[in-house]
Formats: sequence, C-alpha cells, structure tokens
Amino acid sequence: MTLRNDRLLRALRRQAVDCTPVWFMRQAGRYLPEYRQLREKYDFLTLSQNPELAAQITLMPLQRFELDAVILFADILLPLVGVGVDLEYTASGDGPLIRNTLRNAADVERLRVPSPEESVPFVLEAIRLARPLLDGRVPLIGFAGAPFTLASYLIEGGASRNYQRTKAFMFQERVAWRELLEKLTHLTSDYLRAQVRAGAQALQLFDSWVGCLAPSDYQDYVLPYSRQVILAARSEGVPVIHFGTGTAGLLEAMREAGGDVIGIDWRIDLDAAWQRVGPKVGIQGNLDPTALLGPWPEVQRRVQDILDRAAGRPGHIFNLGHGLLPETPLENVAALVDYVHEHTQR
Amino acid sequence: MTLRNDRLLRALRRQAVDCTPVWFMRQAGRYLPEYRQLREKYDFLTLSQNPELAAQITLMPLQRFELDAVILFADILLPLVGVGVDLEYTASGDGPLIRNTLRNAADVERLRVPSPEESVPFVLEAIRLARPLLDGRVPLIGFAGAPFTLASYLIEGGASRNYQRTKAFMFQERVAWRELLEKLTHLTSDYLRAQVRAGAQALQLFDSWVGCLAPSDYQDYVLPYSRQVILAARSEGVPVIHFGTGTAGLLEAMREAGGDVIGIDWRIDLDAAWQRVGPKVGIQGNLDPTALLGPWPEVQRRVQDILDRAAGRPGHIFNLGHGLLPETPLENVAALVDYVHEHTQR
Repeated sequence: MTLRNDRLLRALRRQAVDCTPVWFMRQAGRYLPEYRQLREKYDFLTLSQNPELAAQITLMPLQRFELDAVILFADILLPLVGVGVDLEYTASGDGPLIRNTLRNAADVERLRVPSPEESVPFVLEAIRLARPLLDGRVPLIGFAGAPFTLASYLIEGGASRNYQRTKAFMFQERVAWRELLEKLTHLTSDYLRAQVRAGAQALQLFDSWVGCLAPSDYQDYVLPYSRQVILAARSEGVPVIHFGTGTAGLLEAMREAGGDVIGIDWRIDLDAAWQRVGPKVGIQGNLDPTALLGPWPEVQRRVQDILDRAAGRPGHIFNLGHGLLPETPLENVAALVDYVHEHTQR
Repeated sequence: MTLRNDRLLRALRRQAVDCTPVWFMRQAGRYLPEYRQLREKYDFLTLSQNPELAAQITLMPLQRFELDAVILFADILLPLVGVGVDLEYTASGDGPLIRNTLRNAADVERLRVPSPEESVPFVLEAIRLARPLLDGRVPLIGFAGAPFTLASYLIEGGASRNYQRTKAFMFQERVAWRELLEKLTHLTSDYLRAQVRAGAQALQLFDSWVGCLAPSDYQDYVLPYSRQVILAARSEGVPVIHFGTGTAGLLEAMREAGGDVIGIDWRIDLDAAWQRVGPKVGIQGNLDPTALLGPWPEVQRRVQDILDRAAGRPGHIFNLGHGLLPETPLENVAALVDYVHEHTQR
C-alpha cells in the first residue's frame, strides 16, 4: 500500500517536504464531539480494549482536519494491564489511577513482564485494523510510555506534582529501582516492536514526566533504559520521536538517549532547543496547548513565531507541547492545521 | 550593628568569600520539630500575624544549623490579605487557598492595592523585631511573590498543575491581565520597599510558578512587571535574588528582568545555567529537595557535583532548588550545611 502523504516520515528522516507536517498529541480525544458521544456509552478502558472502536477513533480526527498522521488511540499505561497492578481510568477522564502502588523491592520483584500479545492483544489488533482503514492516507504512529514515566505511575499511583515518592524510591531503593526500570525496559521494548510488526509506521516514546529530574539523575537513573528502548524500537526499521515535558534542562541528555526527533514542550524556544540537540535530529513542537484556547489572532501570532524559529529547516514536525485540551475549540484546531500547511510551502 | 557573617551579602555582590554561603527556602518550616510544636497550638495565619512569634520562628533554624542567613517567616500570599479576596491556609499545610478567585475584568477592577503598613503591619513589625534578636549574626532576607505568581494564585485559587486558567485569562483578557499585573506590581514594589525600611538586608522575589510559560509569553506578559518590581526593590539599596522553578527555558529572560542573583531549581545543571545568564549575575541553587530525603552518601554525591559545577566562582549561593520538604531528616540538613562550608574553603 503506497503512502500518499509521507510528509511525516520524510520529516522524521530530516528530508525536504512540500510543507511542514502537523499532528497533535490527543488528537483523538475529548475535544472531539464524536469521541465524547462514544464516551457517553463506553468508558475509556472499554473503548481501548475494543480493536474495532479503537481503530475507528484513531481515524476520527482525519474526518475534520488535514492532519499528516494519526496516532493510535490508546494510553501509555495499557501495557501495565498484565503486570499485576490494578489500573483504573476514572470517569472524569483525569487520567489513570493505580491503587496498589509499588512500595518496595518485594513489590518490584512481584511485577510480571507479560508479552504484549498476551497482555494487550487488542492494541495490536487495533493497529492491524487501522492500517487498511487508513488506506495509505497518512502514516500511523504507535507509542509507549518510557520506563521512567511508567515507573512514576507505578510508584505515585497517578500523575503527581513533585514526584516525591518516585524520587525517594530512586534514591533510597537503588537496586530495586534498577530492577524496576529493567523490567519496564523489557516490557516497553517488546511492546513497541510488536506495534511495528502489527503495522505502526513511526513511534513516539512518551517520557512525559521526566522533566521533574535533575540532569545528573536523568543520566544515572533513566538514560540507559530509555536508550535501550529506543534502540529496540529503531531495530524494527521505523523512526522514533523521543518526547518529554519540562525538559529544557535535559535536552542534550535526551538526545544522547536517542530518537530521530526530539519532542519538546512550549517552555523553551524551538530554535534554542534545536541548537542544543544539534542538527542531526529533528524537532517536534511546540505550541502551548493552553494557547489554543485563546482567540485565533493570538494563536496565529504564536504559531508564526514557532514557524519563524523552525526557519523551514528539514526535520520540523509541528505539534503542541503536550496533548490537546478537552476545551479546545474545533475551529482553532482546523485553522492551525491549515495555517501551518499554507505558511510553510516550499 | 555590625554584621558578623556577611558571606551572603558578599556573594550577592559576587565578591570573594571565605566559603560558600548556604541557606534554605522554608528553613523555618515543618521539618523542624520546634516549629511543628508551635503549629499544634496555632494555625499558620495566627503565627504569621503575630510579630513576636514570626520573629522567633525566623531565627529558629539558627539554633540548629550554621546557616549564613535567615529568611523572614511569612508566606508570599500574605500581602493579598487586604486586596479583597478570602485567603485561607488549610490545616494540612498544603498551601494557601483562595475561594473567590478572579474570573474577569470586573474582578480585577475591584481589587484594592492597600499599603503594606495598612494590610500587613505585622510582617513589617516581625522584621523590626527579628533584627535585634539576630544581633548581627547573619543577614535577614525579606521576600515577596512576583506579580505573575501572585496573579496565578488569584486566578487558580491555589497551586495548579497546568495553570490553564491563568493562561486562558492572560490570552483572552489581555487588557484585564495587564491591569492585574500593574496592580500586583504596585503592591509588591511597596511591600518589598517597606520590608527594607523595616530592616530586611536582602530580598528574594519568588516567581515560583513562572516556569509554566513559553519564553515569548514570559517576555510579553510578565517580564515588564517583574523588572519594575526588581528596580523598585533595588532602589532601596539592597540586593535581590530572582527565583523561579522550571525556568530552564526562561533564564535569559529572567536575567533581563533583573536580579543580582538568579535562583534556579534542580532541573538544569548549575554550570549550564550560569553560562546562560552570564558572569554579571550570581547563581543560587540547586539541590533537588527530594534528594535530601535520601541516604547521606547519595546527598553528598549530588552536593559535590553542584560545588564542582560552581567551581568556587564568586556569586554562588548554595540553596535547594525549592523549599525544604517537611519529611527532611534534620541530620541531613546539618550535614549539608557543614559539608558546603568545609568543602568550599578558599
């Protein structure tokens, strides 16, 4: 099946493109009325465990916007379904919850590393179903949470403000921490490889909460594991986007960990970030999702600033600095996609 | 009254010191058993509104540690007492709460800007009482919240994860935002000047939550106001520390806003930060407060790394990247203070 729009894959290899590719984290999510309608009938876990529905949701944003990629409808914690913790998605959509959090080395010891075929066959099936539905329109991005971010959920039970428990565990239980990250590295590597075999054409590794760490702690306690995961993913022949938030102090180390493109949030200027990671990788980003709630002229000014900073260099993928907010007006999303395409024509 | 230990003031002017000065944010706080004992009898607001107790708490950490400064026992939201919002400090100590948050331009319009002598005479009196109690042992640091951070509390009602409401207000109510920041600039400038007249010998401006912003938004919506406040404070002849967290992408802009020393958190290497702000300002920081929960050898390794990066350059003030955590072991605090002094002898 020929890919009719290969802008994303070309940008991921830092090749010339006719215009800058654009996609959004959480583009298949709660800001879409048709998704909210489905969520009235089914909870998040039901939707993501039903391959037909998950594939359909994955394609939903294409009906409205001229996006250059779709990203699998799933959640970074899904592969934890089989490890032996109780994963819950609250009705409010405030994100996942784990009640029986990891407390000590014995808890880590008990953690299972099931194969993705065993624990999340529905995710792989959703990919297999999405590809023919896409019919070569745009590439399908698969994804996973990076070992650190998965570990932080397992220890905190959810997203956190300071990641105090995660860091205390890291500092106080150094051996157990390494065992935990090794298990999660194994889990995530297998999961990403299986996604590629099922049909994912690019991958994003979400180390969403890694920005809470000091650079030297990232180097010691996280980098080796992220590197292994990225190597494993790239060994399947697809490019990898390495993403985190709050990473303005970690960019050099994240590039060292790997990735064809480094995904950044809005807390650093795009040109400054690109200079720091160097010309051998691309950059994805970096509009503040909150800015997209504002009036269009304000959005446009910010988008143009980002495009100016990217300066048409091959390897820029336009995205937000994190996921689309549920309150985002659809017309701003549509205007944004069109603006990026129209104002980056080569 | 001669100041017997002027390390902090010398470092603030980037002058040579016999060893690196050290103090901690929240050093007069809940990790101290003698403070917790007081808190069993009085709530936070009662303590901070009683000048005798506030002065006594300010000096508390000196009884245990060889610190090079004390910081006034107060909270950044105290000067909001008189502006017309309902400020509450919850018993759990999770930080302040404002129930009648700002929603629109009319709310901003209604905001009063009382003089500090009118709204917080007890803070100024606490400073007047603390100085003779200190008897020239170490300098007394006064402080205030920066206009952006105060605005974020007024709009969110408390600390927030994404500051979505604050940013939506900033983007959608541009005129009201500017009026709000002008009022808070006025309030904060008067407050800091009054602190110096009462006896504060150095000042720290806390823009604690400014790290949620894109650099260009900081430039447009925040920098001019912080600059005005810092100018006003410095006009009283004392040095100013300009502090924020998550500012790895904002450092150049923060230096442009002003400050004799830039206070950073742990999310960036100290040497990288210092290079970015340039040699004409000092650097304060930057141990992760969570690291201080760990075993001493782990703490020591991180402290030495910070000292190595500071390389004995005049203008380094050792501090944590944010406030001391309530769970911090006293022996780690004591060991840290001694370690910094002993390992930076010139």
